[in-house]
Amino acid sequence: MPSLPLPSPDLFDLPEGVIYLDGNSLGPLPKVAAARIHQTTHDEWGQMLIRGWNNAGWIDLPNRVGDRIARLIGAPEGSVLAVDSTSVNLFKVLSAALALRPERREVVSETGNFPTDLYMAQGLLAAQGGPSRLVTVEAADLISSITSDTAVVMLTHVNYRTGAMHDMDAITAAAHAAGALVIWDLAHSAGALPVDLTAAGADFAVGCGYKYLNGGPGAPAFVYVRPDLQEEVRPVLAGWLGHAAPFDFSPDYAPAPGIQRMQAGTPPILSLSALDAALEIWEDVDMDALRARSIALCDLFIAEVEVRCAGHGLELVSPRDGTIRGSQVSFRCPEGYAVMQALIAGGVIGDFRAPDLIRFGFAPLYNSDADVIKAAIRLGEILTSHAWDRPEFLARAKVT
Amino acid sequence: MPSLPLPSPDLFDLPEGVIYLDGNSLGPLPKVAAARIHQTTHDEWGQMLIRGWNNAGWIDLPNRVGDRIARLIGAPEGSVLAVDSTSVNLFKVLSAALALRPERREVVSETGNFPTDLYMAQGLLAAQGGPSRLVTVEAADLISSITSDTAVVMLTHVNYRTGAMHDMDAITAAAHAAGALVIWDLAHSAGALPVDLTAAGADFAVGCGYKYLNGGPGAPAFVYVRPDLQEEVRPVLAGWLGHAAPFDFSPDYAPAPGIQRMQAGTPPILSLSALDAALEIWEDVDMDALRARSIALCDLFIAEVEVRCAGHGLELVSPRDGTIRGSQVSFRCPEGYAVMQALIAGGVIGDFRAPDLIRFGFAPLYNSDADVIKAAIRLGEILTSHAWDRPEFLARAKVT
Repeated sequence: MPSLPLPSPDLFDLPEGVIYLDGNSLGPLPKVAAARIHQTTHDEWGQMLIRGWNNAGWIDLPNRVGDRIARLIGAPEGSVLAVDSTSVNLFKVLSAALALRPERREVVSETGNFPTDLYMAQGLLAAQGGPSRLVTVEAADLISSITSDTAVVMLTHVNYRTGAMHDMDAITAAAHAAGALVIWDLAHSAGALPVDLTAAGADFAVGCGYKYLNGGPGAPAFVYVRPDLQEEVRPVLAGWLGHAAPFDFSPDYAPAPGIQRMQAGTPPILSLSALDAALEIWEDVDMDALRARSIALCDLFIAEVEVRCAGHGLELVSPRDGTIRGSQVSFRCPEGYAVMQALIAGGVIGDFRAPDLIRFGFAPLYNSDADVIKAAIRLGEILTSHAWDRPEFLARAKVT
Repeated sequence: MPSLPLPSPDLFDLPEGVIYLDGNSLGPLPKVAAARIHQTTHDEWGQMLIRGWNNAGWIDLPNRVGDRIARLIGAPEGSVLAVDSTSVNLFKVLSAALALRPERREVVSETGNFPTDLYMAQGLLAAQGGPSRLVTVEAADLISSITSDTAVVMLTHVNYRTGAMHDMDAITAAAHAAGALVIWDLAHSAGALPVDLTAAGADFAVGCGYKYLNGGPGAPAFVYVRPDLQEEVRPVLAGWLGHAAPFDFSPDYAPAPGIQRMQAGTPPILSLSALDAALEIWEDVDMDALRARSIALCDLFIAEVEVRCAGHGLELVSPRDGTIRGSQVSFRCPEGYAVMQALIAGGVIGDFRAPDLIRFGFAPLYNSDADVIKAAIRLGEILTSHAWDRPEFLARAKVT
């Protein structure tokens, strides 16, 4: 039985005096990942040199990391690959899905979906130059917008701004009933809550390695294809490491069996090793216990903020019902950018999403009830004292 | 004046007793990269957490690394980006080039081009479903194969098997004279010899960070677009970090100015930092001196092997003329796989390319004349003693 105590902040190298509520943007450094990076750098790259591909197993690392992620998202072994970025993986599965429904003309998504998903769809559809189009609707209108002309429903499971979670089972079933395929972006789900792609019957999924999975800045992303669809996929990004026999150096592309064909080029081994090590922690996590703690932390934060920041114009934009919320809480906040900068300067790290949201991610692996209460207290102090109203907090940085 | 002594093996963490002639597959670990990986892991990821994007400059790292590479390939500042894999970058520029020549139907390449380049073209053209086709010809027939129907000439500058180098200036000029665009894959050129994309008038280029540039296993690749073409490119891989204002989170894609639009998703910062550090070494390298040493090392190896391995059926497949050869030497060798395994077991690391090539890369940064002579002696001993004829050398590994 997996039984890691929650929280277990000792597993992470967290800076002194910081309350970190931004693991939904970048998870902190697991100590096991730091050790692994050192090993991959010195013992593998340094000493094995090219032999690391065989002797350190680099060549299979996308598959081994994929299998670790698979266990967190209800995917069978051998159906997930950790490679490339979420954006590039989204392109792979969207192009694959559209090719499987050539007679249909619509990609249905949510108006507030994470922009890169929408952009990648726009780029692909523009390049196809055909009649296909991207249709974006509000979350409440999704199911009624799926028609016999819908090729693909492409959604991020948990909304990056509000934390609102779609009903994966219901939407997948509705899409399938209409003959459409479904792509789930699990960027804010993997490692945040239990996901069961198999139970939902999801066709494709992508997701992120650097948020709740704690794989490091820009860690490789992942891609899932439903096993019985894998052999039907003819990759548009047809790279050599997705070839049936890459080291035969044949001039003609022939897709590898199964999920392997979704790999294109050579993966960044240092970054991928860090993600692999970070995922070791997840072997011991009871995902139901994690989910319960996540909901409790979010509920506590909402309650504390609503008491301590009353009268300052904050408005909860995340669902109050924890069962339809991911592992984050967002508030609309006047002068939110500066407020968040003041909060960060005060040792509580969340983030800001334009135009006016302050956003807090909660990771039961390292966040405690005490963290949550202190963060709400600090936010209340900043609002009451107007500590945010200083030039250094008002000046915008490149990344917000 | 750049004036790093050649060789400077002390800059690298090379294992004791190894002669490393495989830097054309994976460059060794620069000490400065090891230090930087530690810094990025602990001081940046660990301590800055999400603030690393601004405070450690992660957000601009693809540009800064791109600028370092630009100086080695004759590209102006701001025209190169270090992101994704070579395969994915090839897809970006090939799709862009084809869109700029919509009325033309042919992509011309070399029969023996590196397979992933051919595969990516095949995947893209198959997805387009149109009349366009990939035409591959022998190197000698390239220029005569460029016609008024040629949209793009897509070539790897230095052949991965033979080391034969194309005449970049002549082929680019011939393509332009026919109204075609040219893509150069610099995988075996960048850091191996002086390249001048600007002088050649090249339209697009891609290349590899983990070979002669010593960026680490699977280091991010790079992409170049000729400055006056950049604003014409409408990326098919339209990701958020190629958007004009990524942190506005607008629902509609709008390409960033210049080369920035060739970025798609979030780059792997640990791997990219290692490459950045590895490139510091190149600030001090006189590329003409490097080229002279490279030719001398290769010439010496050929001469030594032809004396010491005479009568064993080896056949030079690389050009004997150093001016049309990259920084590698390959021989056809009966039982080449087992011979190379025996050589590696004996402390001389080269590699094998099916069906029968043994391949040796020469990097003047760390290879000396003494290395070259010792390697030839060892090869001669193995061939003479039949030391390769043992089960452990005959059994094939995953990566050859």
